This record gives sequence, structure tokens and C-alpha cells, in this order.
Amino acid sequence: MPKAPKTAITPTRAENYPEWYQQVVKAADLAENSDVRGCMVIKPWGYAIWENIQRQLDAMFKATGHENAYFPLFIPMSFLEKEAEHVEGFAKECAVVTHHRLEPDGQGGLQPAPSAKLEEPLIVRPTSETIIGATFARWVQSYRDLPILINQWANVVRWELRTRMFLRTTEFLWQEGHTVHASEDEALAETRQMLEVYAEFAEGVMAMPVIKGEKTAGERFPGAVATYSIEALMQDRKALQAGTSHFLGQNFAKAQEIKFQNVDGELQFAWTTSWGVSTRLVGGLIMTHSDDDGLVLPPKLAPAQVVILPVYRNDEERANVMPYCETLKEELASQQYAFETVRVRIDDRDLRGGDKRWQWIKRGVPLIMEIGPRDIADDKVFVKRRDIEGKGEAIPRDEVVGTVANRLAEIQQALFDRAVALRNEATVEIDSLEEFEEYFAERAPGGLAHCHFVDSPTMEAKLKELKCTVRCVPLDAQTESGKCIFTGEASERRGVFARAY
Amino acid sequence: MPKAPKTAITPTRAENYPEWYQQVVKAADLAENSDVRGCMVIKPWGYAIWENIQRQLDAMFKATGHENAYFPLFIPMSFLEKEAEHVEGFAKECAVVTHHRLEPDGQGGLQPAPSAKLEEPLIVRPTSETIIGATFARWVQSYRDLPILINQWANVVRWELRTRMFLRTTEFLWQEGHTVHASEDEALAETRQMLEVYAEFAEGVMAMPVIKGEKTAGERFPGAVATYSIEALMQDRKALQAGTSHFLGQNFAKAQEIKFQNVDGELQFAWTTSWGVSTRLVGGLIMTHSDDDGLVLPPKLAPAQVVILPVYRNDEERANVMPYCETLKEELASQQYAFETVRVRIDDRDLRGGDKRWQWIKRGVPLIMEIGPRDIADDKVFVKRRDIEGKGEAIPRDEVVGTVANRLAEIQQALFDRAVALRNEATVEIDSLEEFEEYFAERAPGGLAHCHFVDSPTMEAKLKELKCTVRCVPLDAQTESGKCIFTGEASERRGVFARAY
Ligand SMILES: [Zn+2]
Ligand SMILES: [Zn+2]
Repeated sequence: MPKAPKTAITPTRAENYPEWYQQVVKAADLAENSDVRGCMVIKPWGYAIWENIQRQLDAMFKATGHENAYFPLFIPMSFLEKEAEHVEGFAKECAVVTHHRLEPDGQGGLQPAPSAKLEEPLIVRPTSETIIGATFARWVQSYRDLPILINQWANVVRWELRTRMFLRTTEFLWQEGHTVHASEDEALAETRQMLEVYAEFAEGVMAMPVIKGEKTAGERFPGAVATYSIEALMQDRKALQAGTSHFLGQNFAKAQEIKFQNVDGELQFAWTTSWGVSTRLVGGLIMTHSDDDGLVLPPKLAPAQVVILPVYRNDEERANVMPYCETLKEELASQQYAFETVRVRIDDRDLRGGDKRWQWIKRGVPLIMEIGPRDIADDKVFVKRRDIEGKGEAIPRDEVVGTVANRLAEIQQALFDRAVALRNEATVEIDSLEEFEEYFAERAPGGLAHCHFVDSPTMEAKLKELKCTVRCVPLDAQTESGKCIFTGEASERRGVFARAY
Repeated sequence: MPKAPKTAITPTRAENYPEWYQQVVKAADLAENSDVRGCMVIKPWGYAIWENIQRQLDAMFKATGHENAYFPLFIPMSFLEKEAEHVEGFAKECAVVTHHRLEPDGQGGLQPAPSAKLEEPLIVRPTSETIIGATFARWVQSYRDLPILINQWANVVRWELRTRMFLRTTEFLWQEGHTVHASEDEALAETRQMLEVYAEFAEGVMAMPVIKGEKTAGERFPGAVATYSIEALMQDRKALQAGTSHFLGQNFAKAQEIKFQNVDGELQFAWTTSWGVSTRLVGGLIMTHSDDDGLVLPPKLAPAQVVILPVYRNDEERANVMPYCETLKEELASQQYAFETVRVRIDDRDLRGGDKRWQWIKRGVPLIMEIGPRDIADDKVFVKRRDIEGKGEAIPRDEVVGTVANRLAEIQQALFDRAVALRNEATVEIDSLEEFEEYFAERAPGGLAHCHFVDSPTMEAKLKELKCTVRCVPLDAQTESGKCIFTGEASERRGVFARAY
């Protein structure tokens, strides 16, 4: 038997982080590139993680009063012309449908039929503010019709030149919330509420600590009055924007004529918001928790929380081991963790035990339980926690069942704590440009720098030079008088700077 | 107070069935036309029905061993050229993406950027056999990799000139199953199993009786060896194809090079299947059960199974009525029906009681419960069953809670029985062409005609003349010797003929 390699993933994070990421995606069977440039195939294990994200987020959206609906995939080109900044932002790289039929090209192939050219080209939605806004304009007449609280689960397309699975792909899956309100205050409260929901989800379900903050003017959603985001720190000390919530003011309402009669019978423009998270979250999940042996999944998102591996050498042993495993599976699956029954699989495939074990390690399953004839004789189960180094430990069978929920909760918490510790370690306050330049020097590890700043061309130029970005102004930033490290202007709050995905 | 109209929907089914359908969709707030020709907006009540369909079908797919995954929205044009019949069937009317960027057109508008023309046009998927098959070709090497049992929930686009909401739209939502097998028998068994799943879902969940059968050669999915379908009869006596399951033989495997090494080490082509149902099911649901007062929903698909309407005239009465309703809601919602907790809403909107009541009638809610001070004094609840004529009856409160699950089960069964009775009434055996011509004469009601037939140009011509179609050969058709009513040729089994959607 060949010696097991020191780590299951080559290269390691330290050796080559971007390549390590691709290899984790591959080894965990999450996704692969497709035959369409920039589009990925999400494989069953990756899609099951997305389904777990969807189910839990969807429940949070519904608990805050939102309903799901579905709007067209296509947007007439003229719709993009209506909101000036929005065009700038989204008209650039998108998929344009110009024909509605193919015909033989006379050389044995096909071509778009010239006779079936569309009068007005259609855009495959890069985001749906314009088409949903046009619909809302029909739905809203009176203040009695408000608020409108809608969410859509959908695919969107933004043409990308450089793609990376889950993090940046031409087509991706997401949800987009779109709401309409009678007052500015209510719309602002909605914007902040959904940011709160995203933060709770990221920390409570993904075990990924995030900073809630407001984007600077230059980083706003095209057409928004204010954009809020949650920002997470990956293990390579680069930041990832994991979700955004936009206060659109009356900009879109004016472009799309979303008007209503208020209580006094006066016609006025409504206030709108939009907010979204995407399959990018899966990328964030991978880069927050995974290690040099592959994916590490927080239990709340693991498609299988426990995998049982029966170990036997012949039919006789199998006849002894399998019923024991089946019974254990049923008992484990009747336990509750995080308001759901525990998700358990038995892997009885005809593969070498070591290969099987490594497959599930690379796939990030929180608990692997191995059971052979000797374990059964001792009435013990060999339990390996994915988040802890080492081979695992033998635990009395009854204890395994009775403590499985606690054990999963412990793993969930341990992953969060580890990520928080890593972020704390990579967070600094910086008060001089010199220090800032050192912190983000080309070979320096970097991280999150909290600095006083005033947005200015000088700052933008410096950030560009350092390949650094301003992530947000944290909502919980203390008011303190300071000076912009770039220009020396007076500043009242620190922003967070980092290299970013 | 104006007198309530005799029926909530105008026109009635008898007066103008197609227009009645559109009005039910509108009155129940299910969907509306969008600004994109042929595409609809699915509104929250309609989408919630689709979510209920999805959740229950998805559980059935998973119980039969399938996993979900996601494949690209776009298909390279060249992929459609590979399977000859498939091109014929799907290359015709589809959305063609030719550019990946917009630019200013110099006149204040936008245009597809000539510099961003795609080398190869992309098709928005009308169905995904080709792109998924190309992926499967990479996944399959050995018999050990088989079977592959995948399902995808997705949007698809087929350019349609004449559209009708849910029944025929340019974009629609669906699921498409795609499987690969090592043997013909296994692939055939899968094809039949999924037809069985669809039939169970249609009858058991939608309360819509269906005929399971095989399509004739002319009605097969382009590229399939055999196509099976479930066929339902609508109230206007027209048939609706509600789901299809295709045995693709080795046709697609050969076009896409899905090959594997069998147990003996020989390389051979795999056997594939595909199967799908779509938002068209919602159209079938509407036309099976609804009446001249609007939508009627089987409890298993109703977004709300019970709606409680508090009745009060002032704040004092409200203070009495609301807590009573809240408690009732909680008790009802803790009951189980069909393995799920009962879905209950209270409608406390500031609207006239009659208007509210009619809204929920038109939306098809199975049970409406009205509660005012007098009902509370009697400790009774006024219960109206949507599927039964009349105002309803006062029922002791405790009985209401204890029997709600039974009552829902009764409604579910009653709707199914009613639909079966209607179908039986509209079903005949016909043994002569003359009788057939009378049955499908222009002003005759029509229905389902079971006839001996042999597929032939003579038959096709006659069917075209009568605007009639052959739906399928039922799987449970008895073998009996007869003669084709069109040509007199010998026939062993009857097919089902009907006008169809
Ligand atoms: Zn045309
Ligand atoms: Zn380009």
C-alpha cells in the first residue's frame, strides 16, 4: 500500500492559494467548467450545499414577511436605457439575444435566421431592477398596496472575461429581493433589516464572521443611494463581499414611474430597495473553512452531517456489520440538530476503506464514523471530526447517538471561533500612509486595515497602486476624530481596507 | 350594498372557456403578462403553488435515488447540430445570443456592440439533453460510474407565437431529469418509473386523474426511441399532456459519445433517458378543478389550506375576536395533514368582509373560517368548504380543530372523484369512422375516444381535418383484435384520441 500523502490537496494553501482553491473544488466534487465559456456545472455535492443555503435563507426571508415570485429572464434593451447610472453599470457586459430562430446555413450547419431578427434586442438579466420595477409600477396604485415585499430565486448572466468557479462566473444562481415602500424611513429600515438577515445567516449558518458596513460612493450599486454589504475575510487575508443590500431611494421609482396615492390623496413616487446573495457564498464557504485536506463544511450546510463507513473483509463480517450500521443510521437520523433531523448516509460502495475515508474528508463531512467487527464487539464507534487533526476516537455507541447533536453544534461553533480568531489576527488599525503602504506591500500578507479616510482621487490612485480597496465603513465604527491617512483631511470614522476578490 | 353577482368569474366556463381561464388566472392573482412578449410574471400566489409542486415532486425524485445539479443556461449552437432529429425539433424557435456587450448607438440609445459579436452563437436552452450529455460524457468512464441519476430545476425558453399563461409561454419553469444506464432494460425501467412518479403526483397530489401511455412515432420527443406521457382531461373536454418521460436508447449517447467500459472491459455506448414536467401543471390544475367562482385548489397544493377571517365592527369586538382567531390559528397549524403541518393564515386586512371572502374564494382556498362575536359566544366557527356549493356551516370549535386534517383529506378526495367522474362521462369507445367524425364534429363536445388505429398518412390527414390528435396508447390497454377505424387495417390495441392543448 502506498503511503498516504501528507495532505490530500496539492498544492497546499501556503504553496499556491488560488490553485489550492481550484483543487478543493475539484476534490470535493463541487463543480466543474462547462463547454460554455465562463459557465460552470454545479455537481450534486455542490448543488446540495446551495440547496441548504436556499432553504435556510428562504425561511428567513419568509419570516420577515417576503414572498417569492418569478419575473422574465429577458429584459428589453430599452429598459436598460432608463436609469442612467444603471446602464453604465450593467449594459456593458451582458448576453444579448438578437434572433429567435436558427436555420440551415447551407453548409451543413446552422445560423441565426436573418428573417427572425428581433425588432428590439433582449438582454439576459444581469439583475432585475428594471423588469421588476416595470411590473411594480402596475401593481402599485395606492398606499394600501404597500409595502411590496418580493424575492426571486433565479439565474443571472454577467459576461466575465476571467472566471473562477463560484466566485466569478458568467452565469450564476442567486436570490434578489425587491421591495417598494411608502416612506424613506421604511425603505431604509428594510435595507438594514436584510443586511442583518445576511449577517445572521453568514455567521449563524455558514460560520463565517462578517463586517456589516456601508459602501463608499464609488463602490455603490449603479443607481443606488446607499449600498450596504457584509464583508468576510478569507484565509489568504483577502476580503470577500458576500452579500449586498441597496437603498435605491426614489431613483428607480422615478425612472420606472412607480407612483402611489398617499393617505392624503396625493400622487408620489415610492421608495425601493434591492438585496442579493449568490452562489458566490459557496466560494466564501470554501475559502473560510477548508484546509489542506480539502473542504470543511459547517454542519448546518453539510449535505451529509454524518457518513457511516462499514468496514468488513468478507460476507460473514458484512452480515454482522451492515445491520449494525443501518440501525445506527436510523437512530442518528431521528436526532434533531438546528431544528432539522440529522442528515446521515452509509457509504457501502465497493471501494477500499482508505479511499472512501479520504473522499469524505475531501468533501468536508463533519463526522465520519467507521464501524468494523471489533468496534461492534466493544459496542463502540470510531468517530473522526473533520475540523480536528488526527485519526479520531472510539466512543461508546449510545454516547454517539445521544451526543451527535451536541457534537455537530460544537463543530459549528469551533469553525466560527477559528474564523474569528484568524480574522482578529489579520486585523489592524493603521494611522499613517507609510504603515499602510507596508501593510499592503506586494509580498506582505495584508489583511483588514481600519483607517481614517476621506474618499478622494488621491486615495483612489493610491489604492489602485497597492491593488487594495476600501471595503466599507462598518456600521459599528466608533465616532472618533482622526485624519485621512491619504490626504490629512479631518475624518470621523474609520473604514476597512483590504485586497479583495 | 350591491347584490353579489351570480358567479365571481365572467364569462362562465359554458359561455367562453378560454376567456374564463384567463379571468381565473387574473382573479386568483396567479400570473400576468410581462413587458417581454410571451413571458409571464408568476405572482406570489401562483409561485407558492409552484413551490408546493416543486417540494413534493423533489421529495419523490430524491426517494427514487435522484440528485439535483445545475447546468449552463446556454448551449453552443454546434451542440444542436449533433443529433439530427433533435435539431429539427428544437433548433427552430429559440432565443439566440449573438453578442456579449451593448454600446451607445450614437443616438442616445444602445445597440449590440459589433466588436463583441460571439464567434459561435449561443442558444438559450429549450431543453438540456445536449449540454448535459456533453457533461455526462466526461463523467462516465466505467460501468462503476453508472447509473447517473440527475435532475435539474431550471428555466427554459422556446419561442412561441401564440402564448397562454402557464399553458404555453416563451419562458417557463420546469424540471428535467437526465439519466445514464449501462443497459437498455435499466434505462427502460427508469423511463417507466418516472412516468409512474408523475402519475402518482398528478393523481395523489394534484387530484388530477391521468392516463399513462406511449406516444405514437409522430408525437415522440425529437431524438427519442420511445416517449411516454401522462394525459389529463380538462373540463372543456380537451386533453392536456401533463408530463413526459423519454427513453432515448443510444441515440444521444452516440451523438455525444457517452461511452463506458463494461464488466468485461469492452467499450460500449450507454443508454439514456430524460423526463420533465413544467409550470404547465399549474394550467392543468386550474382547468381540472376550478369553477365559475374562480380557482379551486386541492389542499396538498394550496399555499394556505385554511384562511381565518375575523369579523368585527369596532375595537371592542376586535379585542375579543382577534385573540380567539390567533389561538385557533395556532391550534390548526399544529395539526398534521399529508405529513406537513396545516397551512393557516389570518386575513385581518382593513377590507369589507364580503370582499375579503370573495378574494379567498377566487383564490381557491379549501377552507374559509369566519369568526365574529356571536360565533365566539356559541364557541363555534363558521366553515365554508370551497369545493361545495353553499354558504357553509357553523361547527363547534373543538371539532373544527380535531377534524381539520380529515376535512382537508375529504376535499382532496372529493376533487379527485369529481374529476374522475367528469372524465368517465367524457370517455367513449368508438369503432367506426362515421361515429368518430360525429364525436369530433366542430360543435360537438368531444372528449376522449378509445379507438383501434394504425398510424398512417390517411389517419394523420383525417385528424388534421377534425383538429383532433392521438394522445397515446394507454399502458393498461387490453389486447383485443380490431380494425383501424381510418384504414381498416388489423389493430391489437386501442389508442386515445382527443382535441388537445
Ligand atoms: Zn418570428
Ligand atoms: Zn469580448
